[in-house]
Amino acid sequence: MRKLSEFIPTYNDFPRKGISFKDVLQVVQEPEIFRDLILKMSSNQIIKDSEAIISIDARGFIFGSAIAFQTSKPMICARKPGKLPGLIIEQNYELEYGENTISIQKKALKNYNNFSIVDDLIATGGTAKSVSDLLVKEGKNVTGLLTVVELNNLKGRDKFKFPVHSELRI
Amino acid sequence: MRKLSEFIPTYNDFPRKGISFKDVLQVVQEPEIFRDLILKMSSNQIIKDSEAIISIDARGFIFGSAIAFQTSKPMICARKPGKLPGLIIEQNYELEYGENTISIQKKALKNYNNFSIVDDLIATGGTAKSVSDLLVKEGKNVTGLLTVVELNNLKGRDKFKFPVHSELRI
Repeated sequence: MRKLSEFIPTYNDFPRKGISFKDVLQVVQEPEIFRDLILKMSSNQIIKDSEAIISIDARGFIFGSAIAFQTSKPMICARKPGKLPGLIIEQNYELEYGENTISIQKKALKNYNNFSIVDDLIATGGTAKSVSDLLVKEGKNVTGLLTVVELNNLKGRDKFKFPVHSELRI
Repeated sequence: MRKLSEFIPTYNDFPRKGISFKDVLQVVQEPEIFRDLILKMSSNQIIKDSEAIISIDARGFIFGSAIAFQTSKPMICARKPGKLPGLIIEQNYELEYGENTISIQKKALKNYNNFSIVDDLIATGGTAKSVSDLLVKEGKNVTGLLTVVELNNLKGRDKFKFPVHSELRI
């Protein structure tokens, strides 16, 4: 039985010096591993409890989309500003250097109350936190955050009061 | 029977004046429509003839990923430079204003000869052309380009010698 961890190589000093980059996209090049992963994520209680999945630009789209397909749940994209048309709602968040903003179409949220958040990786958890802050501000409930990989030493999960589950914690 | 076209609204003057933006991501918020679409795309000969799927950053990831899951084929991501670690190969292409570059990890291509290209939309076809040029330069075969929507008036398909199929031509 091949393990998920074998298919997530580390690249040191990418995208800049001092960062150890986990190449989660490698998993999608391995059909059996990807299939098992999506079936496992799809059956997680975080997804089951949610009416809709919010996936985070851009790697989160890959896992969110296959889970949405498998579970027949709607998927809504959280993107950088300027990418989504129509009326959007935004949330700023801090990065190691500077600030960033995440946006969601307002109308995409209106039919549901319970949302799961899907991304490829939790590092500091900053982006996922901005998405959950945005949802809470809109009066919505977050059933949890589900990712493929989590970097334990950065303690990103401590930012969240709802369930956090990662298929691989390293 | 609800039609795909009902779920792809047009936003005029987005992202800038004079552009009519088709919001293809709306489809992913409609589980039945998304499911039918992915099953249809997955059974297309362009996918069947390919050993691996190349999907284009970022909206192409959403459709490529679900097709990869459904067909158990590997998916490889074509991204903007700086996003993919390791040894990458690049291809420049022209935009209406200026130039852009697409990149793929070199090692991702080595086990296959026949690649399908998946994206959300064909406008001028510039990005997909750069991906196919890159594949051809590496000695690979392109089985075709498969997208959700095609803007007929821009004649993007004229750029390609291989099969091009879109689920909705408008």
